[in-house]
Amino acid sequence: MNKEKDSIGYLGPQGTFSQQAALQYTDQKNLVAFPTIADVLEAVDQGKVHKGIVPIENSIEGTVNMTLDMMVFDVDVKLQKEIVIPIEHHLLVQKGTPIEKIQKVFSHPQALGQCRKFLHQYLPHVPVVFSSSTAEAVKLVSESTQPWAAIGTALSGELYGLQRIYSHIQDQTVNETRFMVVGKKDAPLGKTCKTSIAFSTKETHKPGELYKILNILALWEINMTKIVSRPAKNKLGQYIFFLDLEGHREEDLLQEALGMIQRKTSFLKILGSYEIFQ
Amino acid sequence: MNKEKDSIGYLGPQGTFSQQAALQYTDQKNLVAFPTIADVLEAVDQGKVHKGIVPIENSIEGTVNMTLDMMVFDVDVKLQKEIVIPIEHHLLVQKGTPIEKIQKVFSHPQALGQCRKFLHQYLPHVPVVFSSSTAEAVKLVSESTQPWAAIGTALSGELYGLQRIYSHIQDQTVNETRFMVVGKKDAPLGKTCKTSIAFSTKETHKPGELYKILNILALWEINMTKIVSRPAKNKLGQYIFFLDLEGHREEDLLQEALGMIQRKTSFLKILGSYEIFQ
Repeated sequence: MNKEKDSIGYLGPQGTFSQQAALQYTDQKNLVAFPTIADVLEAVDQGKVHKGIVPIENSIEGTVNMTLDMMVFDVDVKLQKEIVIPIEHHLLVQKGTPIEKIQKVFSHPQALGQCRKFLHQYLPHVPVVFSSSTAEAVKLVSESTQPWAAIGTALSGELYGLQRIYSHIQDQTVNETRFMVVGKKDAPLGKTCKTSIAFSTKETHKPGELYKILNILALWEINMTKIVSRPAKNKLGQYIFFLDLEGHREEDLLQEALGMIQRKTSFLKILGSYEIFQ
Repeated sequence: MNKEKDSIGYLGPQGTFSQQAALQYTDQKNLVAFPTIADVLEAVDQGKVHKGIVPIENSIEGTVNMTLDMMVFDVDVKLQKEIVIPIEHHLLVQKGTPIEKIQKVFSHPQALGQCRKFLHQYLPHVPVVFSSSTAEAVKLVSESTQPWAAIGTALSGELYGLQRIYSHIQDQTVNETRFMVVGKKDAPLGKTCKTSIAFSTKETHKPGELYKILNILALWEINMTKIVSRPAKNKLGQYIFFLDLEGHREEDLLQEALGMIQRKTSFLKILGSYEIFQ
């Protein structure tokens, strides 16, 4: 077994939600951390790793935009499988540090933002400090001799030997991130799948153009679970639409509908048919 | 003149693109930096500042999601005016540091990602280090005695006394961020405006539901410049759509169309009619 070929890339460092998603996907040991989403996707594209795991929606560490833009413009990889991870934040300290002694709280700005009510109630006068990831914050606190705290994942707390003194401290009770497993091929027919596509309409800004595409979906009775428009790179005023559709691109109905969409768009890229998270 | 009442909040620290947008919007001196987008919006909502400036699309420091979600669910503020800022990254060092001596490069992960080709060509073996913002990176390098470099804005380089040794080092030549001025009221009638709305359809996932809304826009001949769907918070599987429409909500056609949209949706919030950037 070729170790390199079977390795799986994820958005690091260790202890991130991306690693959590990777561990949920596989019990393989050869996980490789990359510093950015772009690095993960390029490693898959160039065959340096077999698969990659990247956040695609609502993430703490990155944005869906970077993943989607890269997939449309920069790499040729396919979505294979969806993984949904509940985002749960915990207050982590070195063993024996009581909450009233905490002098600083470190975390990623979005994680700090998601725990504002907790911070306001329990640590109202303690300064917060931004880190580049929740895992980075946990590492920093674990290496310090100061009475500091980090907001991070349960996994990162375990990795760096910190103690969890408050659990589930995020404001929203429902808070999830969607990750995608990507590879050189998409999912095989047979499982319950969704298909993501990206396209540009022939005329932009006109509601009638997008309306035509939704008309196609209505005619073929294909459900859409997501729609996003984004400015096309390099072309000011040009838009690209991203749609998530129920079904596999090789199933008859969706295949026909995609054929018709192709005829009504100036650009179409199928980002992959992927097994849904259940 | 009440100083507090006339102050304008922005996403800090000093030297960010948000501050650049604020300076482009006003020559007032009482600009107030806030640590997060949520803090800016709440300060406007609670009357602590008169107006706020927040990124809404394609930003380096924050995500559109946080701004839009806050505006729908958490605060009652209105979009007033759009400001578009070209995102230009520069390589900044302490005076006299030559490029071949640079040992580390600091910046926000997204800025580093946007300058990958430059880094690959000019600083191929130099480690990169993440900061919570480009301005934070510039501050750090300015305070250090090491031969470090930061990727940041021209403004932050000036603020912290660093030297620009390479300019416009981003990979994409067109790279912009849209900011919004928000306040308690939206723009008055008379200027060229767009209107942002958020709504939920009565049945989710059905293409026919969104299709109805686009049908209304086609009937009243209202151009749409953006569409985004996002999961509704607390309601798994429920979606909220964000639309940018040409026109002011008090203009006859748009007013009628919005009335019809209200009848076909289970939830509708008008986020404001705002003067477009020209």
